[in-house]
Amino acid sequence: MKAAQKDPITRLVNAFRQLPGVGERTATRLAFFVLNESDEISRELADALVDVKEKVGLCEDCCNLTDRDRCAICEDARRDRSLVCVVERTQDLRAIERTGDYGGTYHVLHGLISPLDGVGPDDIYVRQLITRLQKTGGEEAIEEVIVATSPSVDGEATALYLQRLLEPLGVRVTRIASGIPIGSDLEYADKVTLARALEQRRQM
Amino acid sequence: MKAAQKDPITRLVNAFRQLPGVGERTATRLAFFVLNESDEISRELADALVDVKEKVGLCEDCCNLTDRDRCAICEDARRDRSLVCVVERTQDLRAIERTGDYGGTYHVLHGLISPLDGVGPDDIYVRQLITRLQKTGGEEAIEEVIVATSPSVDGEATALYLQRLLEPLGVRVTRIASGIPIGSDLEYADKVTLARALEQRRQM
Repeated sequence: MKAAQKDPITRLVNAFRQLPGVGERTATRLAFFVLNESDEISRELADALVDVKEKVGLCEDCCNLTDRDRCAICEDARRDRSLVCVVERTQDLRAIERTGDYGGTYHVLHGLISPLDGVGPDDIYVRQLITRLQKTGGEEAIEEVIVATSPSVDGEATALYLQRLLEPLGVRVTRIASGIPIGSDLEYADKVTLARALEQRRQM
Repeated sequence: MKAAQKDPITRLVNAFRQLPGVGERTATRLAFFVLNESDEISRELADALVDVKEKVGLCEDCCNLTDRDRCAICEDARRDRSLVCVVERTQDLRAIERTGDYGGTYHVLHGLISPLDGVGPDDIYVRQLITRLQKTGGEEAIEEVIVATSPSVDGEATALYLQRLLEPLGVRVTRIASGIPIGSDLEYADKVTLARALEQRRQM
């Protein structure tokens, strides 16, 4: 028996349920919220959803998500082009931007090398970083690449791979520090982090 | 200074933030989820959002939300039309339907009488219930109205109002029971609920 076309409310509930962390109860609450609120809220969300998929692509320099050819950071003349911070995802780039402490440019890999999951260097945006390194020179030459992938197994593997790949090209490769988070209690730090923090102690 | 047109990602994050219980962090997570997933998910949600606002209106009999003239429950010939359960919102109707225990019809008020908030009987769908009572007769005559509003101040006020309004029309008006929830511990019941449960004790 073919089911009848789902009614619009059930359809909306099911559409919300596709989102991460949204179960039936939340999806129903969101659907009735939309139903009870002004048309504007649902129209805005609907437009933004279509728009983002149509207009957003990768920056031709750094692979950041953007609706232009080059992202706002690469377009910004005040950014230090000799410095490139390599991150796994656009979200990580945004997190670093929020600190307000970084004035260089970025490169977004859109993934990490993961031998266990069968993800190799060609499956993420490594090639684009090499091309960029080879293309730039003179005043715009890249002097340092900061590998800011997470200190996870895949993040470390990716960092190691990039170090071996980039150092022969005459670029300084650095890694973000890992250790005890600021403001957290030593007592509750996991032992791997604590061991790392001890190992990477520095002169005061 | 007029701000430049927001980029599509920020626009989507802001649109998600309009939803209840969605803060900046969740909105960002949802936006990047949509960006990374197939077009289908965002397209489906966008379509459902537009659809629901365009197609869903009130059932001409019971004021339930529906995309037809009459809702599926009012259209169902097997439902007992002599019995009308009055609820505050469509969500409450759905909760009762989920029990699978109720074979009558409904009336959705879309609100409660709330003197403190300045909501009177004319601000909710009471008139439609009266019209329906007066219109129906013979085999379809309404014999009992179950007031299933919440046992809150406004819910009780609305129930009392409906009782005074409907009883003179020759309809039996009943109220859902309130008391200790099934499976919960007497020890932890709030004292108002416990007092009510004692007061409304019944012969075994």
